[in-house]
Amino acid sequence: MTVKQLEHASIKNSWFTEVSDSFPGQGLMLKVEEILHVSQSEFQDVLVFRSTEYGNVLVLDGVVQVSERDEFAYQEMICHVAMMSHECPKRVLVIGGGDGGVLREIVKHESVEAAHLCEIDESVIELSKKYLPNMAVGFDNTKVTVHIRDGFEFIREVARSDEKYDVIITDSSDPDGPAEKFFQREYFQLLHTALNDDGIVITQSSENVWLNFKFVKQLRDICKGVFASVEYCAALLPTYTSGQLGLMVCSKKPTNLKIPKRQWTQEEESSLVRYYNKEIHEASFVLPNWAKHFLEGTSL
Amino acid sequence: MTVKQLEHASIKNSWFTEVSDSFPGQGLMLKVEEILHVSQSEFQDVLVFRSTEYGNVLVLDGVVQVSERDEFAYQEMICHVAMMSHECPKRVLVIGGGDGGVLREIVKHESVEAAHLCEIDESVIELSKKYLPNMAVGFDNTKVTVHIRDGFEFIREVARSDEKYDVIITDSSDPDGPAEKFFQREYFQLLHTALNDDGIVITQSSENVWLNFKFVKQLRDICKGVFASVEYCAALLPTYTSGQLGLMVCSKKPTNLKIPKRQWTQEEESSLVRYYNKEIHEASFVLPNWAKHFLEGTSL
Repeated sequence: MTVKQLEHASIKNSWFTEVSDSFPGQGLMLKVEEILHVSQSEFQDVLVFRSTEYGNVLVLDGVVQVSERDEFAYQEMICHVAMMSHECPKRVLVIGGGDGGVLREIVKHESVEAAHLCEIDESVIELSKKYLPNMAVGFDNTKVTVHIRDGFEFIREVARSDEKYDVIITDSSDPDGPAEKFFQREYFQLLHTALNDDGIVITQSSENVWLNFKFVKQLRDICKGVFASVEYCAALLPTYTSGQLGLMVCSKKPTNLKIPKRQWTQEEESSLVRYYNKEIHEASFVLPNWAKHFLEGTSL
Repeated sequence: MTVKQLEHASIKNSWFTEVSDSFPGQGLMLKVEEILHVSQSEFQDVLVFRSTEYGNVLVLDGVVQVSERDEFAYQEMICHVAMMSHECPKRVLVIGGGDGGVLREIVKHESVEAAHLCEIDESVIELSKKYLPNMAVGFDNTKVTVHIRDGFEFIREVARSDEKYDVIITDSSDPDGPAEKFFQREYFQLLHTALNDDGIVITQSSENVWLNFKFVKQLRDICKGVFASVEYCAALLPTYTSGQLGLMVCSKKPTNLKIPKRQWTQEEESSLVRYYNKEIHEASFVLPNWAKHFLEGTSL
């Protein structure tokens, strides 16, 4: 019996290539050992391959979401920067995050009583359980509840109910597709209403200081129109084009988000996290001089 | 008359690709508008192209050295982290750095009386004057003296003479070629002898936390065997594979290199630098938890 070799438009001569209209003129390449899965889900083009150096890689609509080798940098930062900005997070919600990695990080905080995740595409969860087990382990915790539905609709319902959250993490794909609504004012207003009074939200900001920082400034201005404190920080990892992914963190009450409200002991840090620590939290907010001035609207 | 179209093995279908045995399994792509120069100098393969998004790009032996759009991040960090670690740098030496960008940064420090540069490949200087004028402007300053010769031989002579330096910056290409000797113990011993007692050296460490960090640790251990204080930091920029370039900074006398000895005022920073500032200096030394433990030899 002949097994049909899987193919994908982004893979040629055993190299996966990520190019995007969102960041024209540059691209990222990863060497492919084997294509593990190709499908068109109800919502997006899905690709999973085993790379030679970065373990298994999940790609949605042509853009790398996570690789097994460096995913912890992203998952830890989008989770712990937000969680450590809250004195005692008990109820936490993830919008997106179908690989389970953010859930895995959330339940490392002992104060957490409920970790909810709302993912629109069940196939991402199923594929992660099969091909990204070290991330999907996040689904196994008894504090976790999964909702398979549209995150925007889910947040709208939460905003109307009395069941608020302490921390909401938007771990979506980029805005040039169905995730566009997660980068607009209405969504952040719903998030604001869906939070308790000392609530924190964090969202991947899609771009960074090198790739379309204007978009980051626009997103920050939207957030500033809704939240009392808003700051931009970045996670540094090689499988995102240009090596950085920006994050926007917002607080409902005024606070200095650059300084964590809590911190783990050195021993806890050693056993719990591989990327995050108190120093990284603070350093992740430091911007190159031009970007600092651009964001603040001051001249350089 | 037909003008022969320039070609280079690293450019296909208007995309330049950087892949290297030094960091297997991944690659960087830049869209090419026009190939400006291709040659084999006495020492290396030389390519200059105009990219669609990053201005002109200089490539030596297939590896991106600088692009006009983001070069300031690298030049400012390799220069100012070292220069700000010295109370009053008067005599400064660059080994390599034929594009002139580091010289441009050095003379921003008013204390500087002499900025010497030793570059083995005169063609790099000539090409930079033609295609990278905003970097080559560094050669125009009256404090600058250029030596066209082998940097290792030059340092050997300096070490024997009484004309020491306050700061020495090794702005070489990567170690998998003729620059290999700039990453070995003998070179750092010569640098130590070529410095005044409060002297500082900095060298690009070739790799970073994601690309062969073992090499960084080896280099740091070599430096620790020679210098009193040694620290690793990184410049973040998109045209180096994985988005970071590591730097190793060393001091002849014991000191905390993570805190700059001097700082510019906000006004000076605004007029002098685009990437560097005091906060970036300090943040550039902060490592992800696993890398911190790996470098210190402690368990995670």
